[in-house]
Amino acid sequence: MTNSLDTMGVDRDRLWSTIEELGRVGAYEDENAGTTGVRRLALTDEDMAGRRLVLGWFEAAGLSVRHDRMGNVYARRAGLDDGLAPVRVGSHLDTVNTGGRFDGALGVLGGLEIVRCLDDAGIQTQRPVEVVVFTDEEGVRFETVTLGSAVASGRIPLERARKLADPQGVTVGSELDRHGLSDGDPVPGPEPYAYLECHIEQGPVLAREDVQVGVVTGIFAITWKEIVFTGVSAHAGTTPYELRHNAGLAAALVTVALHEMVSSGRYGDMRATAGRVEQYPNATNVVPGSALMTVDMRCSDAAHMAAAQEALDAAVRRAAEEAKVEASVRITAQSPPVEFDPEVCTALAKSASNLGISSREMVSGAAHDAGEMAALGPAGMVFVPGLQDGISHNPQEYSTPEACADGITVMLRAVCELAGVPALQ
Amino acid sequence: MTNSLDTMGVDRDRLWSTIEELGRVGAYEDENAGTTGVRRLALTDEDMAGRRLVLGWFEAAGLSVRHDRMGNVYARRAGLDDGLAPVRVGSHLDTVNTGGRFDGALGVLGGLEIVRCLDDAGIQTQRPVEVVVFTDEEGVRFETVTLGSAVASGRIPLERARKLADPQGVTVGSELDRHGLSDGDPVPGPEPYAYLECHIEQGPVLAREDVQVGVVTGIFAITWKEIVFTGVSAHAGTTPYELRHNAGLAAALVTVALHEMVSSGRYGDMRATAGRVEQYPNATNVVPGSALMTVDMRCSDAAHMAAAQEALDAAVRRAAEEAKVEASVRITAQSPPVEFDPEVCTALAKSASNLGISSREMVSGAAHDAGEMAALGPAGMVFVPGLQDGISHNPQEYSTPEACADGITVMLRAVCELAGVPALQ
Repeated sequence: MTNSLDTMGVDRDRLWSTIEELGRVGAYEDENAGTTGVRRLALTDEDMAGRRLVLGWFEAAGLSVRHDRMGNVYARRAGLDDGLAPVRVGSHLDTVNTGGRFDGALGVLGGLEIVRCLDDAGIQTQRPVEVVVFTDEEGVRFETVTLGSAVASGRIPLERARKLADPQGVTVGSELDRHGLSDGDPVPGPEPYAYLECHIEQGPVLAREDVQVGVVTGIFAITWKEIVFTGVSAHAGTTPYELRHNAGLAAALVTVALHEMVSSGRYGDMRATAGRVEQYPNATNVVPGSALMTVDMRCSDAAHMAAAQEALDAAVRRAAEEAKVEASVRITAQSPPVEFDPEVCTALAKSASNLGISSREMVSGAAHDAGEMAALGPAGMVFVPGLQDGISHNPQEYSTPEACADGITVMLRAVCELAGVPALQ
Repeated sequence: MTNSLDTMGVDRDRLWSTIEELGRVGAYEDENAGTTGVRRLALTDEDMAGRRLVLGWFEAAGLSVRHDRMGNVYARRAGLDDGLAPVRVGSHLDTVNTGGRFDGALGVLGGLEIVRCLDDAGIQTQRPVEVVVFTDEEGVRFETVTLGSAVASGRIPLERARKLADPQGVTVGSELDRHGLSDGDPVPGPEPYAYLECHIEQGPVLAREDVQVGVVTGIFAITWKEIVFTGVSAHAGTTPYELRHNAGLAAALVTVALHEMVSSGRYGDMRATAGRVEQYPNATNVVPGSALMTVDMRCSDAAHMAAAQEALDAAVRRAAEEAKVEASVRITAQSPPVEFDPEVCTALAKSASNLGISSREMVSGAAHDAGEMAALGPAGMVFVPGLQDGISHNPQEYSTPEACADGITVMLRAVCELAGVPALQ
């Protein structure tokens, strides 16, 4: 067994061909991006077509496939001691409206490739290995990210998830019914022994530093706030400056204050963004009477997040006073920071090191299914570099065959260690 | 004659009834404003219906009505020495999309009321008096404000004006043809002796200070700039702060810099407004990749305007550097400050003083036909207070019958002085 484990490696071309083939399901020509994009919104027919393709591959690989009542799929390779809790590897198959081929798909297809590699090498693991497909990670259609994994972890009750509706009023529950996915295993199910996920970075760090894989030690806390300033629309020419109630000015003051907060370094690795600004009436010669802005704050430390939120609220009050407007602030999303299991992180880093693959620790600024899974048991992630500063949620999203194979190879060795291969023990 | 001049006064109810009757032409129910608005876009059928009503009143008052090739109307009351250059009183009858009953209409109907008062009092003036209706002051339909008076003054050539098209491609020229207005007097025509215009203030100053009329000594210089920042759209979670090219931040930095410039007092009576801001893609979790903003700057002094423009350009460069984005700046409108004739201003202030009507000097932040007329000869304006901080370009625009009568009474005395009444000389 030791021999086969040493020579065992990911079949780069086989992995790549599954990524390419799945990328043709839900493909569309994106004129803005000038290339083919992928659109498989959660629980649509396109999403199901993608699943059917991948489930066919699971079955061809001899995996036993089942799903839970949220439609999350578990494709199982039996362990030598099949009563043990499984090691799970997975991600999601749904995409955003203008998606690429890697986000989610790489984690699921990488899981398939790992199982195929184990088969090729004739390796039996002590624990079962399950490849997982989580339903609706993107949250585009039903406005709740990592929905399937949140239901699987017990954070969101199934009944609440089923009631979520898309803009056309179609609910998650009715879509699960339509696709025959409502009758599976109960949620939350039994805890896995460990959960691993490989994902494209969606950021520029690995590519800029020329590092082959990222060992993800956690996920940033996220807070979304929506701030509405209410002033008085007024003629830009005839309204003396001191009589203005300029809502647009208040929004700009907060955007600048936010920038100064982050630049000060007082809030650790905080990233803050005023992504959306809408002034009304938004005319050249009218003092803005109202302005809506959003703030997206992310950092790895809960205390920094709490302090930054206080500072933001103070900045909003100062801006409202300066611009003589009213302000209202609403939290629209909030999640605490996630710390992945140190032993899983060590296993992944050791795997990379043994393989001669360069790696660095990093914290994910984006949410992932692994963040939900961390509530159920030990979890960890591997990032692979993207191109063009990691452009993602875009048809131009790209990673190379080599980079994908590196990431899955690192995962493969860690799966063997976590699931237990008799020769290793 | 002295007796009749002393007892001569504006018939408040007669003036008010013309304002109310004209306000029914082009009236519509405005759901947002909760009241009836007026919509007579320039050279539309509604605008022409408003003109027909007013021209009927001109003719009933014995005025001889003619128009020039831009459709500007001149309704003449002969002078004792009818070869002398006329004293003109007027404004416009077109409105914005969601207009009120006073903007423009008061100046024209006030001119009519002045003529009626002269008739009632049996006064003959030395010079002819002409009531003027300028075509398309608002500039909403053909995107050029004070178009008719600019053609009358020679600033904009008739042929260029005729080629301007509305969003449907309909040109000024074709509309002038359709309404039979292309065959009038040549433009620019002979210079008047003086031009007077009464207008609703469209700002809060008179109402807040409880002053009955404003003697307008000039019109602010106006500069409009459109600034486009180009950065890189990027994931708000995964993109490290130092690698961002945040176009939205640049726009906010300029808005705040503009506020600091104006608040510093270094630019005199400068008013500056960032009225329009559009970020792309304008999503909560995306660093804005581009941002368009407009700046509206107005002040009474050309040197202050020049200095402020330089300071703004420097602020744009600093903001682009700080946010690591590219910037482009385009001037979309520019007009120099207008100074009204000191003798006309004195005549108006003296008229108010003699009548016991409180007045203050002020500079108009908005453009008016009188600003174009100032290029042709002595011009001046009277403002009357609006309600609700002078809300205008809105169905809620309102002034009281008393306030309107006060303004026109002040004009009436000044018209007598300028046009010459034998008993006064």
